[in-house]
Amino acid sequence: MSSPILAGKEPVYQKLAWLLENMIRSNSLRPGDRVPSVRQFSRQQRVSVPTALQAYATLETRGLIAARPKSGFFVRAQQADRVREPHHATASPKVADLARLDPLDSLLSDHNNPKLVPLGAAVPSGVLLPTEKLTRALGAIARQLGSRSLDYDVAPGSEKLRCEIARRSLEYGCSLKPDDFIITVGGTEALALALRATCRPGDTVVIESPTYYGLVHMLREFGLQALPIRMDGANGLDLDALEGALRRTRVSACALIPNFNNPTGALMPDENKRRLLEILAAKNIPVIEDDIYGDLQHEGVRPQCVKTFDRNGSVLLCGSFSKTLAPGYRIGYIAAGPWHERVLRLKKTFSLAGATLPSLAIAEFLRNGGYDRYLRSLRQSYRQQVARMREAVVEAFPEGIGLSRPQGGFVLWCELPAQVDSLELFRHARAAGISLAPGPLFSTQGRHQNFIRLNCGHPWSPQIERSVGILGHLVKRLAGQ
Amino acid sequence: MSSPILAGKEPVYQKLAWLLENMIRSNSLRPGDRVPSVRQFSRQQRVSVPTALQAYATLETRGLIAARPKSGFFVRAQQADRVREPHHATASPKVADLARLDPLDSLLSDHNNPKLVPLGAAVPSGVLLPTEKLTRALGAIARQLGSRSLDYDVAPGSEKLRCEIARRSLEYGCSLKPDDFIITVGGTEALALALRATCRPGDTVVIESPTYYGLVHMLREFGLQALPIRMDGANGLDLDALEGALRRTRVSACALIPNFNNPTGALMPDENKRRLLEILAAKNIPVIEDDIYGDLQHEGVRPQCVKTFDRNGSVLLCGSFSKTLAPGYRIGYIAAGPWHERVLRLKKTFSLAGATLPSLAIAEFLRNGGYDRYLRSLRQSYRQQVARMREAVVEAFPEGIGLSRPQGGFVLWCELPAQVDSLELFRHARAAGISLAPGPLFSTQGRHQNFIRLNCGHPWSPQIERSVGILGHLVKRLAGQ
Repeated sequence: MSSPILAGKEPVYQKLAWLLENMIRSNSLRPGDRVPSVRQFSRQQRVSVPTALQAYATLETRGLIAARPKSGFFVRAQQADRVREPHHATASPKVADLARLDPLDSLLSDHNNPKLVPLGAAVPSGVLLPTEKLTRALGAIARQLGSRSLDYDVAPGSEKLRCEIARRSLEYGCSLKPDDFIITVGGTEALALALRATCRPGDTVVIESPTYYGLVHMLREFGLQALPIRMDGANGLDLDALEGALRRTRVSACALIPNFNNPTGALMPDENKRRLLEILAAKNIPVIEDDIYGDLQHEGVRPQCVKTFDRNGSVLLCGSFSKTLAPGYRIGYIAAGPWHERVLRLKKTFSLAGATLPSLAIAEFLRNGGYDRYLRSLRQSYRQQVARMREAVVEAFPEGIGLSRPQGGFVLWCELPAQVDSLELFRHARAAGISLAPGPLFSTQGRHQNFIRLNCGHPWSPQIERSVGILGHLVKRLAGQ
Repeated sequence: MSSPILAGKEPVYQKLAWLLENMIRSNSLRPGDRVPSVRQFSRQQRVSVPTALQAYATLETRGLIAARPKSGFFVRAQQADRVREPHHATASPKVADLARLDPLDSLLSDHNNPKLVPLGAAVPSGVLLPTEKLTRALGAIARQLGSRSLDYDVAPGSEKLRCEIARRSLEYGCSLKPDDFIITVGGTEALALALRATCRPGDTVVIESPTYYGLVHMLREFGLQALPIRMDGANGLDLDALEGALRRTRVSACALIPNFNNPTGALMPDENKRRLLEILAAKNIPVIEDDIYGDLQHEGVRPQCVKTFDRNGSVLLCGSFSKTLAPGYRIGYIAAGPWHERVLRLKKTFSLAGATLPSLAIAEFLRNGGYDRYLRSLRQSYRQQVARMREAVVEAFPEGIGLSRPQGGFVLWCELPAQVDSLELFRHARAAGISLAPGPLFSTQGRHQNFIRLNCGHPWSPQIERSVGILGHLVKRLAGQ
């Protein structure tokens, strides 16, 4: 007799909460609307009153509905939804000289400084991660292997782990084999190897503008030139701009984050992924695809990869478990296609082997730890945290700001008033005990001066709420308001 | 009433065995000499007869003495000692083009193949390593840290570990501070970072001839030219040859293994270390010092490093725990002196962070695990294994071979008859289930054609003994004997 939504494994109240949320998101229930009374709703959905109440409580915690004394629950004004998305700086597609850029190392060193509110580095909170299961797996494997747990896990790395990673490639429409993968020291090493394998010093690499600061860094250290291409709103890379730029510049590789771009959260649609490959195939340009946020969609199914549509072997797929399982285990991977042998040789040269036990613990968790169930709850946490951050930012920051609407991942990209210097904001915020990532870090040209990226990897807390308030004050002051 | 040698912590029979061994090594007792009877010896040394007997049994197991029925014990002929040391190929100090060298990857993949007798890669046997203590430390730390055990250990890496490593620098006459060190992914990454920090593609690097094949590999991948300098017998690099070569060639760095060179086992004397620095100081050339065997002297005190004598900040010291504690934990380090900031930035670019738990487990073992006591017993094992291997090789191989006399570490460098192609031997041996390292791997120019390196990292066993016999047959056949 229960409604169809009750099929499936999640707790009933959770599903009811989603049902209501969908109605609100789709404007079936609008801000200010009264939602059915708890009693009414429990009757409608054939659930107990306490279950219905729990669903409402969930929505209330998430700020979607609010109780008014003696009148029941109402849909709250979703301020964030009334804010436009940020403008994407129209990066001129000219080659940038990276030699002058000074990195903000403090961002990385600050990420686990307990004295700072962690809105800077894109690092998930430990409380969201399956510490206990991983620790238990690590211990069990160490005991089981005995002295072999101290042995080298020479590249390409643990076959067990490569099997699990290959199995999961079905999720994004690939059917890669264990031998297609090489285990790396996190996603960082995967990217570094991919760049080294496809480019020589002095070569030019297409990147998104903005893009991950680690990549910006890497290009500079490898003596590579960047060709930043502007983003097309939430669709990721502007392919027309790319085509134009490729007519003028000789390019060795294209290093992109098509799924939930860092920092913008943009998701490149499948048809764009296909067209991207067509454009590049004509010039034989490989794609270095950074997919480390790919598993973290907020809704629906996991997005496909560019690799999914790769018929010519022109994609080097890079991923890691640093955003989903255990940053400190340093386990990433690369499926380098025709560059496999070259990457393997480079990996042996740079670091020879990965840490044996962390590799095997992650393999075990992927196999028997309930990774899919875990991912579902992690995605929900990230989604809620991003939503709460959006609300809080809109409440605290001055009018006229732009704010990304990420469909996955856990960072927000925020455009501040033009006169705000985000590096100045960064310094003031740090003095106030708040870490954040200033926009110029995400550019090879020092662009995005008035942008910041906010990490939403931590469960919402009064401390974070207060910090966003403080940031709002600082922004207003710097904007001269 | 006991003799002075009985002071100290080792078991008494062990010390007595050393006493006798020293007498044999110093020729106080010569091959064929009768050693005192057990009863006599027990009286002399003021120990019980069973203890004396145990000392004799130890020496017998190690092949130093032999019992003759009804006549007591005699000193065995130490065949190995009658063999000359290998000739050091007189590498012409001209710049070698590394682009043609084809690596023997199978050596690395073979190292833990249970079907192969492990005389190839220089990897210690797991049974010698403190598996249980490390595993326990790992588990305890994981439980204690909770979710923080999953957190990034961003470069420079765990302060705890850096403190321990700094503390140990006293052992080699340095007094480095925790902040002088950066934790790396094994010694491999330390070397890679040092080369990247000091050289640009196309630059020329002085290396020993022969030298570690990982370094040969690295130079090629980084597009660096090698300037191999011949070895001066057991004293390591020939400094006169170096001076001559530097007059003719412009060099960016000097990458050396001064303590127990891999593969020759040579130990550069302190006065040579000083002179090396003087020679290089005049030209402002930095030394990349690979010290991963430094803790593994067979006798006496730990050797000093080149870094010990470095007054101008021109040494980048690289080390790791892969030869002493846990290869698979991938923990190395670098003290890069004036290149510290540059190396730190490169480390963040290449791999960002190391594996958190393995780092902390090693720090804990260094602090509270009895590392020094453990090292003493490890050194003894390596020393004995090397001695056994030398004996077995001399017995099985044809006359006229050369054999290194390493004063530390656990590899042997063996010069075969000139007509033997070690790559062919490598292939035959592999087919017979034996892994070994052929000479040309240790050269940027394909030299050392008739040399092999033998790993002595495993406790002596009938299987290893048989394998050396098989190698002897193969060598004789290839030598046309």
